[in-house]
Amino acid sequence: MPGRRAGITELQTPALVVRRAALDRNLRTMASKLPAARLRPHVKAHKCTELARRQAQVGHHAFCCATIREMEGMARAGLGADLLLANEVVDARRLRPLVDAGSRVTVAIDSTETLAAASAAGVPEVLVDVNVGLPRCGCDPRDAGGLADDARRRGLTVRGVMGYEGHAVGVEDRDERTKLVTAAMEVLAAAHADVGGDVVSAGGTGSYDLNVVATEIQAGSYALMDTAYATLGLPFVHALSVLATVVSVNRNGGWAVADCGLKALGMDHGNPALEDGGRVWFCSDEHVTFSPREGQPLPRVGDRVSVLPAHIDPTVAYHEAIHVVDEEDRVTEVWPVDLRGW
Amino acid sequence: MPGRRAGITELQTPALVVRRAALDRNLRTMASKLPAARLRPHVKAHKCTELARRQAQVGHHAFCCATIREMEGMARAGLGADLLLANEVVDARRLRPLVDAGSRVTVAIDSTETLAAASAAGVPEVLVDVNVGLPRCGCDPRDAGGLADDARRRGLTVRGVMGYEGHAVGVEDRDERTKLVTAAMEVLAAAHADVGGDVVSAGGTGSYDLNVVATEIQAGSYALMDTAYATLGLPFVHALSVLATVVSVNRNGGWAVADCGLKALGMDHGNPALEDGGRVWFCSDEHVTFSPREGQPLPRVGDRVSVLPAHIDPTVAYHEAIHVVDEEDRVTEVWPVDLRGW
Repeated sequence: MPGRRAGITELQTPALVVRRAALDRNLRTMASKLPAARLRPHVKAHKCTELARRQAQVGHHAFCCATIREMEGMARAGLGADLLLANEVVDARRLRPLVDAGSRVTVAIDSTETLAAASAAGVPEVLVDVNVGLPRCGCDPRDAGGLADDARRRGLTVRGVMGYEGHAVGVEDRDERTKLVTAAMEVLAAAHADVGGDVVSAGGTGSYDLNVVATEIQAGSYALMDTAYATLGLPFVHALSVLATVVSVNRNGGWAVADCGLKALGMDHGNPALEDGGRVWFCSDEHVTFSPREGQPLPRVGDRVSVLPAHIDPTVAYHEAIHVVDEEDRVTEVWPVDLRGW
Repeated sequence: MPGRRAGITELQTPALVVRRAALDRNLRTMASKLPAARLRPHVKAHKCTELARRQAQVGHHAFCCATIREMEGMARAGLGADLLLANEVVDARRLRPLVDAGSRVTVAIDSTETLAAASAAGVPEVLVDVNVGLPRCGCDPRDAGGLADDARRRGLTVRGVMGYEGHAVGVEDRDERTKLVTAAMEVLAAAHADVGGDVVSAGGTGSYDLNVVATEIQAGSYALMDTAYATLGLPFVHALSVLATVVSVNRNGGWAVADCGLKALGMDHGNPALEDGGRVWFCSDEHVTFSPREGQPLPRVGDRVSVLPAHIDPTVAYHEAIHVVDEEDRVTEVWPVDLRGW
């Protein structure tokens, strides 16, 4: 960006802000622990092809998606070297044009119906999704081999298995987390023996260094982080916050209100936190009511505050753009959140 | 729409679906209770100018907005006869072009800073926002008169007061709700006596028939409704649901998974409900795990389910369009959710 760079204080709020140094640190840390094909970054966590490009720059060229829209956007951005739709769909027809345009497209299947959808659409490769303990998608482990046989009979390539230990990745106690991950991966390894193929795709940010069975880890949150994952003692730092402006201050009541509400935040994991240690009282549609950290004065109307989301994925999905800032709080780039919707 | 109308079953999911008959019933019911200027519909609940147009068609031509983007969109859609930004902003410059293009623009102020912002931008009219008990925006009631005087000294027209009894509107017990609304409106009436002007703007869907002090009610949720407001015994029915497709079924575990997750739902009020009475276990980013109503069989992969959000406002804000369906489940119109963002 030539000329003077806009400062963070000039941004219209609420605004997603990503500190480039923190993001780069997270990407490098992960690339050193899980280099190249050992990580398949999950784009659902950021929905941003420009951010995915930075993940590719540190060596991760295979990606996970949760929606067909994410698959389409990644292919369009030239990031389609190896795209896995790590989710079940009963209508895969929108994936075929990606294949025709040269992307490598793999889709998860866990039933005869989702296999039929992949086959009918002409998606050439599948992973058999195996339930490893989270009550969500994934076939019964005993059915995995049969489903793989069916897929091969239909002319599809079965690359292997996937199985998400989502009931384990967020458990705070590391020993307990390890135990749950290990048990889940025993199930997946047994299913893999029945299915064959080279790929065992599993895991997330919370199990990235505990899951030793998966050939590739499907982590997403590590890049930007949130307060939920921050409790796990991982080597990843907060790179994303929502910048907000104080629009009202109540001196008698001891609270202030900033313009970052629950339409700018994923709320399923509860309230966000304030980066400066203030206490969040509650969120409304367009407001967060908070009080300053003990001993600190109330802010003034017009002051800026940084809000840390409890859950990164549904937070980013509300915003149109990520504002990348350098260490002097200058906005150096604006990255569209271009993978939203379905 | 000439020719054959697409059926609901052809929609790509997740999809916002609005039943036109239920919407029309809600709009007519409200218009009969609070005709013409007695209601100032809040567009934050639906973020859709086409829906606002239907509200205008039943007699409501003055609207509330929560963001400048909503103000801009309403003005652009020709619905700018009387737009109130019922929220504080410290930078009102984007409102001036609306005034210049002929919209009537009023903005809430609760401090010298927000007054200065309105004045600097050339916004001609203000309401003094008064805190009536909810710890959010609004000046101390004792400061309202002085703020109005300041505004008039700066050449602004003070139309009156507003004050949102948000701590009262969701209280389930009607007597208790009435008591809280009445107490809040005593505060607002006293402030109004100090401020002057014709307008006392307050209330919401939960207090639309209890608030007898307000000259206009700022209700929004009544048009589409959600499960939170459905507990209040109001004469408004569910008009909106999120249509989802079952993508996975676990017969041994007794659960199914549909493609309506927490990126398609506002989650601050908790889990959504299933229209057919099934039980929601939990939501993930792109999934809802559920079991059928007792005695009912599990659905099959590919079946459709209707999900009722717990909170309408942040749900709609995730979606690009509302699909309007008739009583035979045909999609008759697609309305863009064109007021998203800030």
